[in-house]
Amino acid sequence: MDDCIFCKIIRGELPSKKVYEDDDAYAFHDIHPAAPVHLLLIPKLHIDSLAAADERHAGLLGKLMLLASKLAKQHGLESGFKTTIHTGRDGGQVVFHLHLHILGGGKIPTL
Amino acid sequence: MDDCIFCKIIRGELPSKKVYEDDDAYAFHDIHPAAPVHLLLIPKLHIDSLAAADERHAGLLGKLMLLASKLAKQHGLESGFKTTIHTGRDGGQVVFHLHLHILGGGKIPTL
Repeated sequence: MDDCIFCKIIRGELPSKKVYEDDDAYAFHDIHPAAPVHLLLIPKLHIDSLAAADERHAGLLGKLMLLASKLAKQHGLESGFKTTIHTGRDGGQVVFHLHLHILGGGKIPTL
Repeated sequence: MDDCIFCKIIRGELPSKKVYEDDDAYAFHDIHPAAPVHLLLIPKLHIDSLAAADERHAGLLGKLMLLASKLAKQHGLESGFKTTIHTGRDGGQVVFHLHLHILGGGKIPTL
């Protein structure tokens, strides 16, 4: 997706503070952190949102969830963290490339 | 897990306002809704938290994510919803059976 800012980050056309990358996934620090640790984890495959995902993406989604937990631990969040996905405008989604927030390390928004 | 309240709900030993059930998953209305629509989606398999999940659960986790989106749509949240998993005490987890919050239908907490 030419105009997607997360696709641009993956391609290295926009800067990011990368914390992880493999063939399927990419993770980086949120530019506006809402908690002491605030990472974004995204699939390299452009999927607009969770609502646009289908059965073909089940394996990828499962992998992302496990990866979220692994990244949280690697960033010192052994005692707890929160993972959130915003879907659609009324769900608070701003960038339309599926992304998972990983939050922790202090007071974090409750729900 | 004998003492787990979500396992008890799945077994029908505690009441719940069920909205979905299949061989792997169970969903019901949160007893203390934080939004006009607030569902909880849980695996029937007892897994303490996302931090306790491993590669064996990848398929199950992927299925739950897709199911969350399907349930959101079925509950009128086509324009958007939020999915959140709390992991560990410092992540705001209260019931130690992995569960996914589905929130929408009005003003929802941002992150």
